[in-house]
Amino acid sequence: MKYDFVTAVDRRNTNSIKWNVKTDDLPMWIADMDFKVCPEIIQAMQEKVALQAFGYEHPTSEYFDAVAQWYQQVHGSRPKMEWMIFATGVIPALSSILKRVTHIADNVLVQAPVYNMFYHSIENSGRHVLSSNLLYDGQEYSIDWEDLEKKLALPPTTAMILCNPHNPIGKVWTKTELEKLSSLCEKNHVVLVSDEIHGDLVRKGEDYTPAFSLEHKQQVISLVSPSKTFNVAALHAATVIVPNEHLRQTVNRGLNSDEVAEPNLLAIPASIAAYTKGKLWHDELIKQLNLNFDYATSFIQDKLPKLKVISETATYLMWIDISKLKTDSRTFIEFLHQETGLIVSAGEVYRGNGEDFIRVNLACPMKLVKDGMNRLAEGVEKFLNK
Amino acid sequence: MKYDFVTAVDRRNTNSIKWNVKTDDLPMWIADMDFKVCPEIIQAMQEKVALQAFGYEHPTSEYFDAVAQWYQQVHGSRPKMEWMIFATGVIPALSSILKRVTHIADNVLVQAPVYNMFYHSIENSGRHVLSSNLLYDGQEYSIDWEDLEKKLALPPTTAMILCNPHNPIGKVWTKTELEKLSSLCEKNHVVLVSDEIHGDLVRKGEDYTPAFSLEHKQQVISLVSPSKTFNVAALHAATVIVPNEHLRQTVNRGLNSDEVAEPNLLAIPASIAAYTKGKLWHDELIKQLNLNFDYATSFIQDKLPKLKVISETATYLMWIDISKLKTDSRTFIEFLHQETGLIVSAGEVYRGNGEDFIRVNLACPMKLVKDGMNRLAEGVEKFLNK
Repeated sequence: MKYDFVTAVDRRNTNSIKWNVKTDDLPMWIADMDFKVCPEIIQAMQEKVALQAFGYEHPTSEYFDAVAQWYQQVHGSRPKMEWMIFATGVIPALSSILKRVTHIADNVLVQAPVYNMFYHSIENSGRHVLSSNLLYDGQEYSIDWEDLEKKLALPPTTAMILCNPHNPIGKVWTKTELEKLSSLCEKNHVVLVSDEIHGDLVRKGEDYTPAFSLEHKQQVISLVSPSKTFNVAALHAATVIVPNEHLRQTVNRGLNSDEVAEPNLLAIPASIAAYTKGKLWHDELIKQLNLNFDYATSFIQDKLPKLKVISETATYLMWIDISKLKTDSRTFIEFLHQETGLIVSAGEVYRGNGEDFIRVNLACPMKLVKDGMNRLAEGVEKFLNK
Repeated sequence: MKYDFVTAVDRRNTNSIKWNVKTDDLPMWIADMDFKVCPEIIQAMQEKVALQAFGYEHPTSEYFDAVAQWYQQVHGSRPKMEWMIFATGVIPALSSILKRVTHIADNVLVQAPVYNMFYHSIENSGRHVLSSNLLYDGQEYSIDWEDLEKKLALPPTTAMILCNPHNPIGKVWTKTELEKLSSLCEKNHVVLVSDEIHGDLVRKGEDYTPAFSLEHKQQVISLVSPSKTFNVAALHAATVIVPNEHLRQTVNRGLNSDEVAEPNLLAIPASIAAYTKGKLWHDELIKQLNLNFDYATSFIQDKLPKLKVISETATYLMWIDISKLKTDSRTFIEFLHQETGLIVSAGEVYRGNGEDFIRVNLACPMKLVKDGMNRLAEGVEKFLNK
């Protein structure tokens, strides 16, 4: 590898939420990575800082061009320049969009188990969460089309949040599924907001399909960001892609009124560097994540027969079925933390059948993955013997 | 001077809104500075970038301590640690607070002419602007207490935005005036939101009084930021100071729901550097601004008898009465731009009697101030002779 995926950055005492933990704790929960950021991004940041003037900024056409080129090059689909709006993050954009395209007491459809911040975005603005829970057969998840169609057709259902690929289960929805879904949304006048923050983290198999590239795109909004891909959550940069002009004007006005449309001093140059100079780093990241997933999957299969890894192809988050431990995820993760120092996410926060699962963040050097797996094994053993 | 207030940073082609202008234009409008940022801040930024990991962050107690110490040292009043909340900016915080502490169709009181973004914050969320216009005697502005008291007492008036010191007129309200004002707000159950972004830019005379230090502080919210003081608008860092606990919880929930409470990767370390290492730079900035204001004031008094400088003591923005030109500010600034390349702000955007004024940003090296004054003189002469 050209880049360093071996050294973990020491992030204790650096304002990091993830690493604000006790000395012996090992955090594998919140979704950011412990790899060093791509040096080309660091260089762009250094160059911007060296400018020594940080007044009000606007996103440039160079920025939107970099985003468009990345989607063309990596995902085979180029958003038009005029479709794109800068935002300070995927969740700030999502919250603003929901407030603008739905009304108080409307239903916003989700597919639980799903990223917990969606629930906050919906409920904090007085909208209702309506879940069409994913079906689970003990091996993998699928969409309950009959249920979904029924719920999309309810008059109070005015928006749906798609997680594409799906966090926490790691699933890449097929183009066929997404075409069907967007067609149903269009038919029912439901705005489809697609969180694609994990889109660049498809580790193997079929690539993800950006919602803006679908045939039925008039109701569709894609939310993309270099945040997960390049480990720059605190960069506060995202792009809102809205093919339909009228919808785009509506969304744009919301983002501006809600004060989440202005870039900070690093957002533009660092994003441009990521999208134009980060491809090789990204390729190597995917390789490392596959090594990590292969190791952890084998480890759990060999040593922890009570646990079942859901084998999916996207994100750096492993979704593990712990139902055979005969407990709930909250009880187990608290025990695990107390006994071994390993911190993982309790599946229950994602709702649906999440209480039978834990989510483990594997975006770290192999040394930490091994440490984490050993702690997980120790925790499971102690839990079963307690 | 230890620091460089002579070299203007070349900000053309750097995403700067201010400098996104034609080659020969001289922008003296939007309120950011053309001085180099304090090198201690640059160093803190460089150190943070060198960390090479930029996951999710939280504001630290070190940050709040730095803010508290600055207010103690510079303004003689220390906010308690628990009163403070981080926000991504003064205007994002203001917009969020108005949405949280008032209802649709309520009145939000302002004192025109005043910072135009206040109107956007109020009107974009469906509240009404109610102005108690400042009185103007041809020399200076004062509060129309009778009118203000009447309007504060109206049941639909639930919040007031104070500009402290007042942009664009540059006035520092006295402690006596502010005590009276906060007492009236308390009496009428009106939340007093005080924009104190120019608080550190009192060039001479009596210092500004932070609203959180007033006797009647239970209805009061101070919004402060290193943004203007240290020329870091694109840092996206501000502090919301709310002495009353119940009001603080309400505001805190709003800031979080509205996604304007999370720091980007530079916000915390750069703010700490500004507040703990920036005092000498700040002292020298004030000296330079006084030189600039003295020069521009003399220039206008000597050469432009039709113009009248409003002699106030705060901000780096000069408020100039152009009523003797017998035109409106929009017509004049467009003529000035076209004929001389000088770009200043039309007073009409601040409403009240603003259409008789222009606002000129003097936060730049003396060379640019002189260039600006010469262009202003040329523009006035051409305007009078056209």
